[in-house]
Amino acid sequence: MDFKENFPVWDKLTEEEQEKLSASVRERKVAGGTLIYDGAGDCAGLFLVRSGRLRAFILSQEGKEVTIYRLFDRDICLFSASCMMRDVQFEISIEAEKDSELWMIPADVYRELAESSAALANYTNRIMAGRFSEVMWLIEQIMWKSFDKRLAGFLVEESLLEGSRVLDMTHDRIASHLGTAREVVTRMLRYFRDEGMVELRRGTVELIDMEGLEEVAG
Amino acid sequence: MDFKENFPVWDKLTEEEQEKLSASVRERKVAGGTLIYDGAGDCAGLFLVRSGRLRAFILSQEGKEVTIYRLFDRDICLFSASCMMRDVQFEISIEAEKDSELWMIPADVYRELAESSAALANYTNRIMAGRFSEVMWLIEQIMWKSFDKRLAGFLVEESLLEGSRVLDMTHDRIASHLGTAREVVTRMLRYFRDEGMVELRRGTVELIDMEGLEEVAG
Repeated sequence: MDFKENFPVWDKLTEEEQEKLSASVRERKVAGGTLIYDGAGDCAGLFLVRSGRLRAFILSQEGKEVTIYRLFDRDICLFSASCMMRDVQFEISIEAEKDSELWMIPADVYRELAESSAALANYTNRIMAGRFSEVMWLIEQIMWKSFDKRLAGFLVEESLLEGSRVLDMTHDRIASHLGTAREVVTRMLRYFRDEGMVELRRGTVELIDMEGLEEVAG
Repeated sequence: MDFKENFPVWDKLTEEEQEKLSASVRERKVAGGTLIYDGAGDCAGLFLVRSGRLRAFILSQEGKEVTIYRLFDRDICLFSASCMMRDVQFEISIEAEKDSELWMIPADVYRELAESSAALANYTNRIMAGRFSEVMWLIEQIMWKSFDKRLAGFLVEESLLEGSRVLDMTHDRIASHLGTAREVVTRMLRYFRDEGMVELRRGTVELIDMEGLEEVAG
């Protein structure tokens, strides 16, 4: 599996641009749980996911987290190279959620190529529009959806992502994804348990009544 | 005042592109309070603000609003042409907050130009990154800032925008900006009043203690 087969607009670049890009790309393997970009820091470059899973999140001053989006195979992470976009005024952190293989494209190379290649610039646009949509979805969730709906929706989605009804996740971890306090998660999970929708064991949540959870999620 | 003097990357377009763009631009005057794009509807095209002020907001299924950002002179509104960006999966509504003069660029013309012009595509990117930053700021506000801080910050910002300490705004209207219920706004405004920071009259809020409000806003 090669970089050029995974980079979405490879065929739309000139030969010269292709050479420049592939000469600069570096492969990187990271273990699950590794923070690969801390938002404030230096410009890590763009990550193209070869395999594994990345999580983008924001951090409050008090260290609280909210998950913004996830990146899967062939997804590209723009905001780890936000130094190349002076209009990006926020800080996103990126961690590997699973063991991951990445290609890293240096920010300056990407920016230079995008300056002359309309195809690459339009591709950047499409990625940003996609991320923008995920963030708008999150705002709607936070503003207008009650917490039981958000939590039920999160559990169902995680179960589909993991391909398992048993989620290895502490309440604390779930709270970090949803940007709330652990106590709030624990209280709602106990309510779901009392309704027969989940079973709780130390560090795991088992989904028993998938239909019920989907119904709560709405 | 001419379109080409207000369109930020005019000089970076070829003569042919410039001709195509200026031949397609239409001028439009709208009265304050007019909804100029309803999100779901057809593709209005891009608006470039010549004068006045636009407000972009999202609507819940129950009709609740949250202000996402404002557009001022020389700002351009991308999302009123989101039909041209298939990765935009959300609906933003746009209203004129004041009497406004706009230039309207048809979505298909803009898209076609951006496909060949890297300058225009990169400009689109910069606009989107700027709006993205405003949305991320909003998420941080909603997630981590208590309502007294948000309201105080809103009042100070509106006062600067209007160049006046007297804001002609009902509590209902303020609630729409901040995505909350009128009662919540009324309660907090009364608290500010009791603290000597504002005076309340029917349909207006007067800011008395600007420093105090700024301090609450943090």
